[in-house]
Amino acid sequence: MLETPIRDRRAERREATRAEILEAAWELARAEGLAALSLRDLARKVGMKAPSLYSYFDSKNAIYDAMYAQGSRQYLERDAGLGLTGEPLNDLKAAMHFFVGFCTEDPVRYQLLFQRTIPGFEPSAESFALSVEGLEAVQKRLAGMGLTDPRALDLLTAVGTGLTDQQISNDPGGDRWARLIDDAMEMFYNHVSNRKGGGAGNDGHAR
Amino acid sequence: MLETPIRDRRAERREATRAEILEAAWELARAEGLAALSLRDLARKVGMKAPSLYSYFDSKNAIYDAMYAQGSRQYLERDAGLGLTGEPLNDLKAAMHFFVGFCTEDPVRYQLLFQRTIPGFEPSAESFALSVEGLEAVQKRLAGMGLTDPRALDLLTAVGTGLTDQQISNDPGGDRWARLIDDAMEMFYNHVSNRKGGGAGNDGHAR
Repeated sequence: MLETPIRDRRAERREATRAEILEAAWELARAEGLAALSLRDLARKVGMKAPSLYSYFDSKNAIYDAMYAQGSRQYLERDAGLGLTGEPLNDLKAAMHFFVGFCTEDPVRYQLLFQRTIPGFEPSAESFALSVEGLEAVQKRLAGMGLTDPRALDLLTAVGTGLTDQQISNDPGGDRWARLIDDAMEMFYNHVSNRKGGGAGNDGHAR
Repeated sequence: MLETPIRDRRAERREATRAEILEAAWELARAEGLAALSLRDLARKVGMKAPSLYSYFDSKNAIYDAMYAQGSRQYLERDAGLGLTGEPLNDLKAAMHFFVGFCTEDPVRYQLLFQRTIPGFEPSAESFALSVEGLEAVQKRLAGMGLTDPRALDLLTAVGTGLTDQQISNDPGGDRWARLIDDAMEMFYNHVSNRKGGGAGNDGHAR
């Protein structure tokens, strides 16, 4: 006898409710601050009593974790769609425009994915793996340019995070730091491509 | 008749209580998150009922503002004590070691002074002036090196904030990004000192 594939309407409803709770959590985090998310306010926003939330998420950290995974997946999807040319400096610029754009379009998502804003919150191994995947994509891209020293990767993430952070913190909605992206990538690429492996230790300075 | 200078014991007590409230607010912010500061918890921590707090601070934002001013003064005092040599690259490195050290030693103070972590909070004009003073000191230092283009300043603050941010977020308590400071300052200085005014627009690229 053949199995009849039937829709699991109960699971579908459950998934839809979880998605609705997450959407409400993002809205509250944007309004009140990421670390200030209140389960009582969240329950009220989705028309539940607070204990009912626990049938969808075990804890507040489980909600943050699901938000983290969701944001990381959005990042990976968009990153995979980057049309790169193979010309290193152009690709660095394009990838950095994407990164800063992704982060500044939703500062709370940026805080959750790239900063430690919530005391005591660490993503689960499963969610963190998505973030590692994003970093590995950058690493692979650098390696394709001959930049294999891990310090080149760290320097690049510092420059990217710094441009993002200053843009969000000191010129929200503007482009004062975003318009430095091309210049910053020229600075980075000239610096690291002049050195073996793109790392430090080969510039004549004793360390 | 000479005025007799007498101590205003009442004002001294008031100032001491305000300082105690601020200290408790920092501790709570470190434990719960900066945006999650609760006036009820704060009152409990200093042994008051919540309404009594209002005789010391008008609002939660007034507490954040006093914390902001306190942190900014700590920054200015420490920055003024930097022994610089007049040798540009050495001074850039020394100043950046100070900046990253100051920020990473207290990530919550860093969040308050340099990021937008609390929705709706803006420092008062008086407190913000302290922050502007700090930035102007950096600007003056760069000008002394012949780097007067405002984009050089913005690039430097991006690199500094990025190193700090990555250190705090991805290697708390370690030195993975802190040990890139000298390298990053060499990258920055080589880049900007090769250009008139230390800014962009002079590198042969059309913009």
